[in-house]
Amino acid sequence: MALLGTLGTPGDIASDVAEILLAADRRGIASHGTARLPNYVALVEAGVMEPAARPTLERERAALARFDARNGWGHHACRVAVDWAVDRAASAGSAVAVVRNSNHYGIAGWYALRAAAAGMIGLSFTNSSPLVAPTRALRPLIGTNPIALAAPAGRWGAFCLDMATSTIPRGRIEVAARRGETLPVGWAIGPDGRPATTPDDALAGALLPLGGLEETAGYKGYGLGLGVDILTGVLAGATFGPNIIGLFSTEAPSDLGQAFMVIDPAALDEAGAFESRLEGYLDQLTSAQTVPDAPGRVLVPGEPEAAAEARSDERGIAIDARHHGSLVELGERRGVPFPDVEQTA
Amino acid sequence: MALLGTLGTPGDIASDVAEILLAADRRGIASHGTARLPNYVALVEAGVMEPAARPTLERERAALARFDARNGWGHHACRVAVDWAVDRAASAGSAVAVVRNSNHYGIAGWYALRAAAAGMIGLSFTNSSPLVAPTRALRPLIGTNPIALAAPAGRWGAFCLDMATSTIPRGRIEVAARRGETLPVGWAIGPDGRPATTPDDALAGALLPLGGLEETAGYKGYGLGLGVDILTGVLAGATFGPNIIGLFSTEAPSDLGQAFMVIDPAALDEAGAFESRLEGYLDQLTSAQTVPDAPGRVLVPGEPEAAAEARSDERGIAIDARHHGSLVELGERRGVPFPDVEQTA
Repeated sequence: MALLGTLGTPGDIASDVAEILLAADRRGIASHGTARLPNYVALVEAGVMEPAARPTLERERAALARFDARNGWGHHACRVAVDWAVDRAASAGSAVAVVRNSNHYGIAGWYALRAAAAGMIGLSFTNSSPLVAPTRALRPLIGTNPIALAAPAGRWGAFCLDMATSTIPRGRIEVAARRGETLPVGWAIGPDGRPATTPDDALAGALLPLGGLEETAGYKGYGLGLGVDILTGVLAGATFGPNIIGLFSTEAPSDLGQAFMVIDPAALDEAGAFESRLEGYLDQLTSAQTVPDAPGRVLVPGEPEAAAEARSDERGIAIDARHHGSLVELGERRGVPFPDVEQTA
Repeated sequence: MALLGTLGTPGDIASDVAEILLAADRRGIASHGTARLPNYVALVEAGVMEPAARPTLERERAALARFDARNGWGHHACRVAVDWAVDRAASAGSAVAVVRNSNHYGIAGWYALRAAAAGMIGLSFTNSSPLVAPTRALRPLIGTNPIALAAPAGRWGAFCLDMATSTIPRGRIEVAARRGETLPVGWAIGPDGRPATTPDDALAGALLPLGGLEETAGYKGYGLGLGVDILTGVLAGATFGPNIIGLFSTEAPSDLGQAFMVIDPAALDEAGAFESRLEGYLDQLTSAQTVPDAPGRVLVPGEPEAAAEARSDERGIAIDARHHGSLVELGERRGVPFPDVEQTA
């Protein structure tokens, strides 16, 4: 937060950014957390992101609003937008908020969980830089455009699906490259358009949409990713698809779009009835008989991330040496020393 | 419609049912069209579906409603529900309607397209009988729970994603059985929990969620299918997951749940601006360079179905001999002769 202060970001905005980046780290999604701080800072230093901008509410109906993030921190603009939707859903029963002229907002799930913490169903969407080849296309034309859906689930805490609409995120290919792995068919295509078998081939080509190739219904993942772009970039009037610049490119503002949908189950039922039904459903699924080679019981979406969060809150957040080094270097450069941490590896 | 009259279904309800079943046939989705009429009639004849029931609006806020379909035709109750959501979205900007105590509603896309025809973005969801094994589970515990998203797209007519959250529908396995095909990994598991290689093995086992096995991110399709059930069965207070009885089983009422979300882009923009942006986006995607072995250009979701619809409207709907025979037999049994049709096969 002190570091964001050196950029001119007011404290309340910095607080949102810090909370959401740390949520990614706590939930074990390091690729979307503080490891990205150097990228965000580079955008501000290059003058293509406004560190102090506050979102404005441009259009408003009882259950629909459009915010202009004014090229500021996506995390803050989207926290404001989802809170608007939660507030409106409490009276109207449901509400939708979209954001344009925005930047990366971190993990999609945080905003959906914000609604779940208010006892509501939350959906969160963003578009992103083109990394995925639509079915039959040679080049990446759409983003990994995630979908998050969270809901309060009693003893299970919250159900939280938070998924890219590609088979795997680009970061998973980078991990495979470091490990020298070959890739399963369905993850990516190479620059020649054939299924990529090596990480290098995939990194030079494009990710495949969820479902993989056409014969395994990759067109569904393509449709989902495009659907997310319709709800975000196209609806909000932001940039979309192949027109979005590269991830954390400093050549121009990103002009991303986000969307949030919130539904209040308490408008339909006595308090707690929805959570209780969902809790019972998750009990049924997690106690089901498994396939012979299953590595464990059936999981609830979001369960691995919630477990990582509980571990982090108990033992602290584990970050790798490269991530640590980049934050120390960033702190030194901005004159805000990175706090001492326990070395575990 | 005369046939539905013999069941005691009033004319306006029968008209909705006929329109939605014929829309499936016209769009080339025979599995969800008039071929199912004998199944629906069997439910009425067995006394487990109410052919004359009218839905009631049970709870209502400005942008959220719950309807009780009173165990009547799902098509009619859901047409009423989506029309309520379109009407409310026109004033509130967005609205959600859920339906409980319902029956099968045909193709999910029809309801989304109903909103698109009103110039709005429509989302349509239903839960269904358990056919899909969640990741790691041995048995089918959730339905193929479809997601449909439609939006007006200028010269492209409408964007219409209409997809089961399983890799493929069960009907595709039945087609493979008739053709004597083997199955790709990712479609289904056999009763032993291993990937099914033959249609018989798959039909005795379970479909896999979109994404297939765990290594190709099948847990995302599982999360999507479960998310649909949360928005429909769990939110509406209908049955869900493993508690839903078999497809067209006459043992008891189905008590399915459906949900519709509608957003009015005209609340955010001048009229036509949204459609124009989406049209331009689809122009970009469909003119993109393709992979070397592509069977054609990049498609817009819903394009094959829209093409089938145009062909049907020009040349009539083609149904196969078994489908034709079942309707003739049904007509004879109910005393309403099936109209003469041109034999083409």
